[in-house]
Amino acid sequence: MCGVFGVQGSLDATKYTFLGLYALQHRGEESAGIVTFNREKANIVKGCGLVEEVFKKVNLDEIQGSLAMGHVRYSTTGSSNDINVQPFMVKHRGKTLAVVHNGNLTNTSFLSQQLESSGSIFQTSMDSEILIHLLAKSSEDDLENKFVEALGHVEGAYSALFMVDDILVGARDPYGVRPLSLGKKDGAYFFTSETCAFDLVGVEYIRDIARGEIVFIYPDGKIASKQMKKAKASRCVFEQVYFARPDSLVFGQSISKQRKRLGHVLAEESFVDADMVLAVPDSGNFAAMGYAEKSGIPFEMGIVRNHYIGRTFIKSSQLIREFSVKIKLNPIRDLVDGKKIVLVDDSIVRGTTSKRRVEALRECGAKEIHMRVSCPPVVSPCFYGMDFPSTKDLIGAQKSVEAIGDHIGVDSLSYLSLQGMKNALNGEKDEFCDACFSKSYPIKVDQSANKYVMENA
Amino acid sequence: MCGVFGVQGSLDATKYTFLGLYALQHRGEESAGIVTFNREKANIVKGCGLVEEVFKKVNLDEIQGSLAMGHVRYSTTGSSNDINVQPFMVKHRGKTLAVVHNGNLTNTSFLSQQLESSGSIFQTSMDSEILIHLLAKSSEDDLENKFVEALGHVEGAYSALFMVDDILVGARDPYGVRPLSLGKKDGAYFFTSETCAFDLVGVEYIRDIARGEIVFIYPDGKIASKQMKKAKASRCVFEQVYFARPDSLVFGQSISKQRKRLGHVLAEESFVDADMVLAVPDSGNFAAMGYAEKSGIPFEMGIVRNHYIGRTFIKSSQLIREFSVKIKLNPIRDLVDGKKIVLVDDSIVRGTTSKRRVEALRECGAKEIHMRVSCPPVVSPCFYGMDFPSTKDLIGAQKSVEAIGDHIGVDSLSYLSLQGMKNALNGEKDEFCDACFSKSYPIKVDQSANKYVMENA
Amino acid sequence: MCGVFGVQGSLDATKYTFLGLYALQHRGEESAGIVTFNREKANIVKGCGLVEEVFKKVNLDEIQGSLAMGHVRYSTTGSSNDINVQPFMVKHRGKTLAVVHNGNLTNTSFLSQQLESSGSIFQTSMDSEILIHLLAKSSEDDLENKFVEALGHVEGAYSALFMVDDILVGARDPYGVRPLSLGKKDGAYFFTSETCAFDLVGVEYIRDIARGEIVFIYPDGKIASKQMKKAKASRCVFEQVYFARPDSLVFGQSISKQRKRLGHVLAEESFVDADMVLAVPDSGNFAAMGYAEKSGIPFEMGIVRNHYIGRTFIKSSQLIREFSVKIKLNPIRDLVDGKKIVLVDDSIVRGTTSKRRVEALRECGAKEIHMRVSCPPVVSPCFYGMDFPSTKDLIGAQKSVEAIGDHIGVDSLSYLSLQGMKNALNGEKDEFCDACFSKSYPIKVDQSANKYVMENA
Amino acid sequence: MCGVFGVQGSLDATKYTFLGLYALQHRGEESAGIVTFNREKANIVKGCGLVEEVFKKVNLDEIQGSLAMGHVRYSTTGSSNDINVQPFMVKHRGKTLAVVHNGNLTNTSFLSQQLESSGSIFQTSMDSEILIHLLAKSSEDDLENKFVEALGHVEGAYSALFMVDDILVGARDPYGVRPLSLGKKDGAYFFTSETCAFDLVGVEYIRDIARGEIVFIYPDGKIASKQMKKAKASRCVFEQVYFARPDSLVFGQSISKQRKRLGHVLAEESFVDADMVLAVPDSGNFAAMGYAEKSGIPFEMGIVRNHYIGRTFIKSSQLIREFSVKIKLNPIRDLVDGKKIVLVDDSIVRGTTSKRRVEALRECGAKEIHMRVSCPPVVSPCFYGMDFPSTKDLIGAQKSVEAIGDHIGVDSLSYLSLQGMKNALNGEKDEFCDACFSKSYPIKVDQSANKYVMENA
Repeated sequence: MCGVFGVQGSLDATKYTFLGLYALQHRGEESAGIVTFNREKANIVKGCGLVEEVFKKVNLDEIQGSLAMGHVRYSTTGSSNDINVQPFMVKHRGKTLAVVHNGNLTNTSFLSQQLESSGSIFQTSMDSEILIHLLAKSSEDDLENKFVEALGHVEGAYSALFMVDDILVGARDPYGVRPLSLGKKDGAYFFTSETCAFDLVGVEYIRDIARGEIVFIYPDGKIASKQMKKAKASRCVFEQVYFARPDSLVFGQSISKQRKRLGHVLAEESFVDADMVLAVPDSGNFAAMGYAEKSGIPFEMGIVRNHYIGRTFIKSSQLIREFSVKIKLNPIRDLVDGKKIVLVDDSIVRGTTSKRRVEALRECGAKEIHMRVSCPPVVSPCFYGMDFPSTKDLIGAQKSVEAIGDHIGVDSLSYLSLQGMKNALNGEKDEFCDACFSKSYPIKVDQSANKYVMENA
Repeated sequence: MCGVFGVQGSLDATKYTFLGLYALQHRGEESAGIVTFNREKANIVKGCGLVEEVFKKVNLDEIQGSLAMGHVRYSTTGSSNDINVQPFMVKHRGKTLAVVHNGNLTNTSFLSQQLESSGSIFQTSMDSEILIHLLAKSSEDDLENKFVEALGHVEGAYSALFMVDDILVGARDPYGVRPLSLGKKDGAYFFTSETCAFDLVGVEYIRDIARGEIVFIYPDGKIASKQMKKAKASRCVFEQVYFARPDSLVFGQSISKQRKRLGHVLAEESFVDADMVLAVPDSGNFAAMGYAEKSGIPFEMGIVRNHYIGRTFIKSSQLIREFSVKIKLNPIRDLVDGKKIVLVDDSIVRGTTSKRRVEALRECGAKEIHMRVSCPPVVSPCFYGMDFPSTKDLIGAQKSVEAIGDHIGVDSLSYLSLQGMKNALNGEKDEFCDACFSKSYPIKVDQSANKYVMENA
Repeated sequence: MCGVFGVQGSLDATKYTFLGLYALQHRGEESAGIVTFNREKANIVKGCGLVEEVFKKVNLDEIQGSLAMGHVRYSTTGSSNDINVQPFMVKHRGKTLAVVHNGNLTNTSFLSQQLESSGSIFQTSMDSEILIHLLAKSSEDDLENKFVEALGHVEGAYSALFMVDDILVGARDPYGVRPLSLGKKDGAYFFTSETCAFDLVGVEYIRDIARGEIVFIYPDGKIASKQMKKAKASRCVFEQVYFARPDSLVFGQSISKQRKRLGHVLAEESFVDADMVLAVPDSGNFAAMGYAEKSGIPFEMGIVRNHYIGRTFIKSSQLIREFSVKIKLNPIRDLVDGKKIVLVDDSIVRGTTSKRRVEALRECGAKEIHMRVSCPPVVSPCFYGMDFPSTKDLIGAQKSVEAIGDHIGVDSLSYLSLQGMKNALNGEKDEFCDACFSKSYPIKVDQSANKYVMENA
Repeated sequence: MCGVFGVQGSLDATKYTFLGLYALQHRGEESAGIVTFNREKANIVKGCGLVEEVFKKVNLDEIQGSLAMGHVRYSTTGSSNDINVQPFMVKHRGKTLAVVHNGNLTNTSFLSQQLESSGSIFQTSMDSEILIHLLAKSSEDDLENKFVEALGHVEGAYSALFMVDDILVGARDPYGVRPLSLGKKDGAYFFTSETCAFDLVGVEYIRDIARGEIVFIYPDGKIASKQMKKAKASRCVFEQVYFARPDSLVFGQSISKQRKRLGHVLAEESFVDADMVLAVPDSGNFAAMGYAEKSGIPFEMGIVRNHYIGRTFIKSSQLIREFSVKIKLNPIRDLVDGKKIVLVDDSIVRGTTSKRRVEALRECGAKEIHMRVSCPPVVSPCFYGMDFPSTKDLIGAQKSVEAIGDHIGVDSLSYLSLQGMKNALNGEKDEFCDACFSKSYPIKVDQSANKYVMENA
């Protein structure tokens, strides 16, 4: 769970990247950073917290560059401390190398042992540092070949951007697990994890980077592409059902439309007669609207979201924390009192929050609550960059659907079927990684490769 | 534009007040404060910023009390600096007096001159300080009479809470312009500006404080009421159409239902055929759903709200600020491209933001945009506590409806009629103050009484 | 323990005041503040902490004025919280009134009851607020008479500065307990608690304000003086022996010279043969040099002061705190090992620190330690503004000199005699308040008038 | 200009290191850091600012270890930004390596090119990182041999501490330029740059680390030593005359005594008749006392140091900065007025501050000012870790003694002679590096090796 954004060839590269990170903030709230390059030198600003917090006192004009790339992060590799915040940047043979990436390498133990045996030292526990070491060790002379050679050693799921002084490079792993799109505006090139960031700054979406593709953008505007050996397409289905913003294209598909289709199929598979369809806002909005469209039951905005809840709140005293679910989402008593409700959400991970939401609806007088979830139960962790809890905390892995329904206190509970989900996702049904639902992992996983692997050193 | 919340008789009074202010945060983002009283002494915490920011480092247990009251504020009287933050608290004859209030007095110039001529000194430019001086000067011996006498000198619109050591007092002006509700939980009494704060902490709504009523709640649980001379009911209609949260009861009415009814009448008055109804989220949500229900045109969530935009963003460089409207609300290109759209919002004040929103929809390919506003044009300022710009910045006061439509770039623009608005607002049509739409001011206004009046001293 | 500084008639008034407060910082480390007046309005900046901390982020140009006055404070009246920080400022009949003062009123209970009975309300627990209320209530029309009338009600020890819009006023109580000096530079007038602040900014010392004198400085440069009824001169002797900076004139006397003379008499009264005289730096420096001069024993700098110890250190863990005395003042082992030492300090208040200092010298091998104190034992509290602990914590009030010597672990201990102290202090022997040594209080004290009196309200 | 402190074998290692850094704060005010190791893992806290500032919010118990080492820094290599703050720490082959060092390597360009050609990457511009890379690359299996081999590649002046998981290593370069002492307390071993830090925490001084010696201290208390090839002893004479604290032993000599001896010789070489000897506090204190002792002229404390001047002050407006010298050190008018003064300081580097000090004395009426400096003129930069300005800013390199005297405005100026300085420094006259006075550099210097060398990469 990370987001990357990069620009080559605009005097406003830094500002565009700053804006892009705002648009990608939902992909990682733990840290943020931007590195830029101008004629003379590299600049980097990074820190823990939201984009807002990290850049609060930064004058963007002071880190101006014609090349800029940035990162927002929810930690998957390495715990969240200052040293592990991206971008990762080093000096090497007179050049500045930097990297930001989204995803998770799966052969880090092997690679780091190999690198250390020839004298490399590691300052962080980030996958990013390994990518840079591989580049530094590469025996190829040509820059493009150096990337092909270095990334050839890597296994896992990643979409990465690299800065080599004034050259910007974008790469996507051979399976194409994580998204990465290319855009253009006024002669400058842009990379982004999701196109909502392109819309914001008026960049035209050109195409997705292909799986296994490395794209080089030079300061003179020249663009080149190298292709690594491709593997079977394995696009992360969870990006579509849960993670991406509804106003983005991801893997070329409109997320809002995909989610409405999930709602349609959900209504077909598990219709229940009711007075209204409610969404858990904002995550369940589009699936709920799809459910309402297909079922003919009216959609209502019966739960109000409070926009002022920040992080401090969560850390307050026990009494305060008990209200944390309710203060964020408050049902409208007047609308739900005495009503039969279909409650649609996009997923149930731990089940704790859902239980509280259902209680809040009951307190407001809801007569019946039928919960519908727009994906199958999450039964297995993700090794490719999605930050699920461990199996023992995944309620879908521990309980039957019926037991989950009892636990969260609903009158009925249905999940979308695996097949139904694939059918709903327009025409690409065989090209997804759905390991979190199916346990079919497309990329070999070193079972010890959890996110603390490098810290145990 | 302020919110007040108070509790008498609970060991968790401070925490309930803290939570209540979170629920009322939309009523004032500029400052927040809580005062509490326990057996021994008064405690106060207040500061500029959101509740989150002001209480970030405060241990609520250290300001525990069985009585607590709090305030969130958007400045109407006095500019927003530290000294003008409420609660306002003083020591007087061995007792601690404190006040929080929502609204605006209209005879402050007169009162402050009178008070100063007998030696009173003012530390702030807040109406609140005048209320306390009047109490201190009152020649009545009995506390309840003292309040009746002191508030008898005051003209204007206010809902105020007072603390006199361990006694909590709630008062509403004789016109009943601002809301104030009374609730109960586990033997403790609660006051709030809006009932959404009651829902949050599980308080049962009992009734509204009547206009001109002063309610005294004593530490032993005794409750008493005094009635000042009543004036003509003049409830602020803008609370209903714009300001209050949709999950609140205000003046005894469900805001979400009221707004849907505004949407129904709006559809009747100015139907236009279109592919979809969009709301400007979140302000236009319920009116848009009402419009969709009545017109039969599908409601779509075609504009996505970014929840991460904080205040820092707004203060950034010029290039960044240009994106400030778009970064907050982003249209979904895929949904609106090539479509005829009805865009519903709850009001147009300056017109600047609406113009940007329309541009953003055009950039995403919207074919036709028909804007519908769920209240009449705002043509005159509010002297009773709503923070409108001056007349010259009210677009409704400066341009015809047609010219406004041209200005913001829509294919058509219609406002709800004054009569339509009154009809929609369930059964209380004669009891509203609608001066901002009609210029009929129910309370005499000293024209010099703008919000800087005391600062000119 | 406070310091005041004021300027009338310079465009750099704010900066001079800022510098003046730096020079007076030793008089109060708990809070600092400056108020200024320019043609249009008053500005105030104040806060808890050192001058450095309070003004860290303040652009002095933004609070420029031709009149400025400031304050540093060690709390004597009112506990140290934000609301009690000086300057105290109000609006009254179109004018801004502000006050800063050094000292302690002794009839506050009486005055505040009287003021409240006629409707005055108090926001702070500071004496300063009472001074302002008295001015506001005064029935005199003329400003100068108003001050004479208002201050006529006050008993106690004070040196105060007032701002009435663009007029600066300096006043000293009829006993002249606290110092206040007048100076001039480039046509502007200056007030200060100690002349070291004049030296810093190049101001010429003119004279001390007389006891019971009120000096008015008008914006046109006119200066006027009113004389209240004088009482018996009662200059605080502790300013001379302990509190003031050695580079100041206080009550017209050079502090460094006075302290050397105290050392001379101390050597006469309690000579002891030794290898060296050491001072407890910096407080004992001049008395130690005086002792060395008179006794012929060499003066050595055998204790090194660490300049980096801030407040954080003091709040650390137990183990760290144990080192707090030693980290601040470290004996030079090489100099003191095996030596007979006369250790001179300016006072012993609680005895705790002295005990630790003596232990540190023993650890470094000191063979004999003879402590000599350049004033008599402190046996009684100060009600006029010096912040002593209560009698039960004054070691001089609890133990005999011999017992104190045993307690702190010295081979011998002698204090300067009361008569010796008076003889040393050049020619003014009858004009001092020495109540802390003698229990002879020149001004009647309301025994309940401790520093929390107003907070118990 | 840096200080190092380390502890092996105490449960209070972290706290002792924290205290040690306080005692060494004068050796570097720009950054501070501590790394610790306990059974399970390494902890590091570091940041820009004073020890006080960096550790303000740190709970030392949370970074407890039985091994700890720390650093204070004034930048000599690398500019002062966060990434260059020591300790420098990495993970390598399952172990944590960390280093702190005082001094400057002189063959960094050569070493870094060599390391990069075999794939090493650099994240900082610190010498420390090179030391770690050399250790990581060493082909030796045995830890002690690895250090001998790795440090064998290094040229320059350094005293360094290393942590290899639970092993603490102290090393001093073959010339012995920078000090490093070994101590013991309760079975634990301690390293420090200066013994004042030992005194503070009650550690017994054992001996200095020899030049070219590497000392290994194992967690079981075993201690081992390896000797590299020694070079000619070249102890930094500037540590003695200027840099070290007077209460330290450095190179086995008492600094306070050494400085008094410098004062004695200075009085012999350049006696002048006067009324008093003043020191520039605190740097000139001991030389001034020595001068007074030898000359028979009375020593006076005629300049008062203000202890409240922090960094903020320096960054203020122009008018404020003009007072920055005077606010720090204020002459006592009463003492110096009309007097002939010998003013003793330990050095003149740029001359700017001395000029201001002399002006301040003149303003206070000093009749004659004869400046005496207790070392020869500084004529050449230091490449071994002392942070002098470049030659063009060294007034001793640019002007004759007479011209310097004119520049700073004294009646006469004399420096101590090179020979006189050597004679004064007790018995080790041939073992000093005095290149800053004599231009005789004992270690070959790569002229391009200025402190920005690695940043130009």
